[in-house]
Parts: sequence; C-alpha cells; structure tokens
Amino acid sequence: MAGKLALPQTGAEVRAEIRVGRFRRPTSGVAPGYVQANLAILPRDVAFDFLLFCQRNPKPCPVLEVLEPGQVEARITAPGSDVRTDTPRYRIYRQGELEAEVDDLLGVWGDDLVTFLLGCSFSFENALIANGIRLPHFEQGKNVSMFITNIETARAGRFSGPMVVSMRWVPRDKVVRAVQATSRFPAVHGAPVHIGDPAAIGVKDPTKADLGDSWQPQSPDDVPVFWACGVTPQAVAMASKPPLMITHAPGHMFVTDLKDEDVAAF
Amino acid sequence: MAGKLALPQTGAEVRAEIRVGRFRRPTSGVAPGYVQANLAILPRDVAFDFLLFCQRNPKPCPVLEVLEPGQVEARITAPGSDVRTDTPRYRIYRQGELEAEVDDLLGVWGDDLVTFLLGCSFSFENALIANGIRLPHFEQGKNVSMFITNIETARAGRFSGPMVVSMRWVPRDKVVRAVQATSRFPAVHGAPVHIGDPAAIGVKDPTKADLGDSWQPQSPDDVPVFWACGVTPQAVAMASKPPLMITHAPGHMFVTDLKDEDVAAF
Repeated sequence: MAGKLALPQTGAEVRAEIRVGRFRRPTSGVAPGYVQANLAILPRDVAFDFLLFCQRNPKPCPVLEVLEPGQVEARITAPGSDVRTDTPRYRIYRQGELEAEVDDLLGVWGDDLVTFLLGCSFSFENALIANGIRLPHFEQGKNVSMFITNIETARAGRFSGPMVVSMRWVPRDKVVRAVQATSRFPAVHGAPVHIGDPAAIGVKDPTKADLGDSWQPQSPDDVPVFWACGVTPQAVAMASKPPLMITHAPGHMFVTDLKDEDVAAF
Repeated sequence: MAGKLALPQTGAEVRAEIRVGRFRRPTSGVAPGYVQANLAILPRDVAFDFLLFCQRNPKPCPVLEVLEPGQVEARITAPGSDVRTDTPRYRIYRQGELEAEVDDLLGVWGDDLVTFLLGCSFSFENALIANGIRLPHFEQGKNVSMFITNIETARAGRFSGPMVVSMRWVPRDKVVRAVQATSRFPAVHGAPVHIGDPAAIGVKDPTKADLGDSWQPQSPDDVPVFWACGVTPQAVAMASKPPLMITHAPGHMFVTDLKDEDVAAF
C-alpha cells in the first residue's frame, strides 16, 4: 500500500491524515508547494488587540486568515478544515506558561476563541531556493538561526516587544535577487528587514543564534540577511500573559489549501 | 499674505488649517504627494468584525492605520493629529441613517470609538498619471465612475455585501503598465480587479455609472479597467446598521504625513 507510506501531497490530505491520528510529526517537507501556517488562538477579548498588533506589524505577523469567534473551519484558506483537530500537535499556555502539549483541542475549545493563521517562512524559502540560494538548514532538516533584535514592534493594546528575525547567509551576488524574490511574498514575511550589518539591529554575533540552530557563512562573500520572523507574535503574546493562548507545537504547522503562488503579491 | 492664500503643502499643514477652522473644503489637490485616507469610526464592539472584514478584503479595504479604542491621535501615519478635529467635514450615521454633517467630533466622541484610516485612490491615480495615463475626472475636478458589481466580498461577522469598483478608461497599449503601476500600491487598492469585460463583473454599461460621474471612452482603443473602491467598506458597514458610524464627508479626506512612496510595496 504505497499510498499509506507516501507523504501526503496536498493540504487537504495532510489535514485528513492528522485528523484521524495517522500523522503526528513536524510538517516540514509535506505537501510541497502548499502554504503552511503558524497557529495562534486567543480569547475574543484580547483578539482585537492581537489583530491590531498584526495589522501594525505585517512583516513579523503576516495574517493569512482570522476566524470568527468560536469558528473552527478556516473557510478561506482551508475549506472543510477543523482547527481543533487538523494540526499535528498543539501547545496550551495559561498566563504565558506552558500547561500542556496535546493532540487536539476538543477538550479545551470554547465559543469565545479566535483563531489566527499567520504566514510562515517555508513559502519564501522555496522562492529563495528556486533562485539558486542554498539554505543548509533546509537541506539538513535543521532550524534557521533566529535573533532577538533591538527593533521595537509597533505596540497595540497589551502587545509590545522586540522583533525576532531569522537570518540566512546569502552570497553577495545573490542579495538583490533575494530581496526581489521575497518581496513577492508579503503574506509570508516578505522582503528582508536588514542586510549586512548585524550590529545595526542589535545582533552581536550572527554565527551564534538566540533561537534555533547556529550557522557559519559558507564563503567570505556570504552576507547575513535578516527577515522578520513568525516567532515575534508568539513571543509578544506570551509576554502579555493572556489567560489562555493556544499555538501549534514548534514545526507542527497547520497546512492550508493555498499554493505558494496564491500568496504572491504580484 | 501669500501664505494664507496658498494651498497647504504638507499633511501636517492641512490638518493644522482644518483644526483652526480655516479649511473646510474637499481635499483633492491639497498637499500633493501626501497620502489621503478614508475615515471610518465605529464602536469597539463592532470594530473587531470591521477589522476582520478589512483583513479579508484588502483590495476594497486597505488599512493604513487603526487607532486603539478612544485614541484620537493617528500616531503612526500622522503624529500630533486629532481625528476629532483634523478632517474638514464629518458625517454621523445612526443605525445606518445620516443624522448630521458636522465640522468636528468633540460633541460626539466617546472612549469606545475605534478609528480606521483606509487607503483612498488618490495615491494610485498619481501613479497612473505619472505613467502617462490621462484621467479626465482628475483633470476636470469631477468624480470617478463607480459601479456596484456582482463580486461578493468575504463576509466577516455582521459585514457582507457586493464590492463597489471604480472604473477608468485606459488605452489598450497602457493596460499592462496600469497593472504594474498600481500593483506597487496595495495599501491604496492596488492592482485592478478586472480588465475589459464589464458584464463579467455585473456591470451593464460602463458609460453609465452607479455612483459618481459617467465617462465615455476617449478612443475606440480605450479599455475599461476596474479597481476595488473605498466606497465598499462604507456601504457594507452602513448596510449592517451599526448603532453609530462616523465617516468623512465625501471628498473631505483625512490627510496623513505619509508620502505616496511610503505606501508603495516595493
């Protein structure tokens, strides 16, 4: 039965496998070309502030879809889905503290919960690779380097804090192309926030990551290029200690029906 | 005193003149190059749905800034401003019915009011003109043609309804350039929603506008090109009959400190 062994090839196939308990692993590499999303679920009374925070900080917090309070189907980006069951693993935080990691949200769901699907970097990494920029963390199944910067996000209500960025080494003669290729994808972090001088954004040593794995340049001509990172909204929301916040477990994303080109700006 | 007769040249100058009661006219042509905004003010308990509506319908409802509940200064796009006094004329609607047209909001303001500044078409019309596309309504100080289409907006909570579009005749050999030039400005409606076949979007006769002024093609080679219009969110909000809604009076916009290039995507 090759069908059972093969990785799911579409967003709908991944979600169906997850829903029946047959898929509980990180989603990197599954359903290639389909847009994967960061998941953030918050009570309605903090959701307005969080949506405002995302609106004011579109690079770290690119909104793919926001569901109505209590709604469980991502009608726009994943018709037929159920956000309570279709992500391989969830984390439940109360007052900013991790309480549990669970396989579904059926026991914790409530009518006042608002689900946010935020763009993740997989789509724009595909664009970089398509443009001949090698990403060792991608090839080796490891994590990108992430740094906490001195760039303040735009505050919204209870939400504020520094921007977290991801860094990729880009050969000098590919930097312009990297800007162009990722500018096409504002819904998944878009263009870089900084090129070339880590100290200018408060990064002491680009070879020593604050989060994720550390990477050395592959050549003296490699330039550190920084993009806004989806860890930002999670870190900012946690710091405000909301009564309840639910997220995907790291790497265990919600896979939509959108293709990468569907979220390209032009 | 030439200074008194000259039109204000910056967003801050316009707002200062309005605030002291010296400017009560439509803002077309003032502070050239500065981004002007549609104003929509709603009570907090409907603001989340409205923000969600804008997020789901970015072409008709491009958000420039959303203020916190009760906040009167547009800190991001117009520091030092006061949205209660810095627009030349306002309209107050209750339950979807026009109640009054007023010069300021000092008598009606409340701490639960949320202000939305939405992109307007002036910025992208500048881009069309810069690319050699003539806009007779612009040259003659009249209104663009607007049509109610059969394109449904994406519903959010109480908000739903058809998309309203504006139409401009574009010479056939400039259509591609018109798409490129306006694609740069997603924050002010962006790329067209339709080119060439009015019937396909429910428009019977492109020379007979539903709203605004009607325009004939200037040559048989002119193609009707349709863009999402900022009248959409106002029409949709009105149709939902919110207890209170405040807008700018038609043509009397809120002028920000942003320059057109500040809202260009790339």
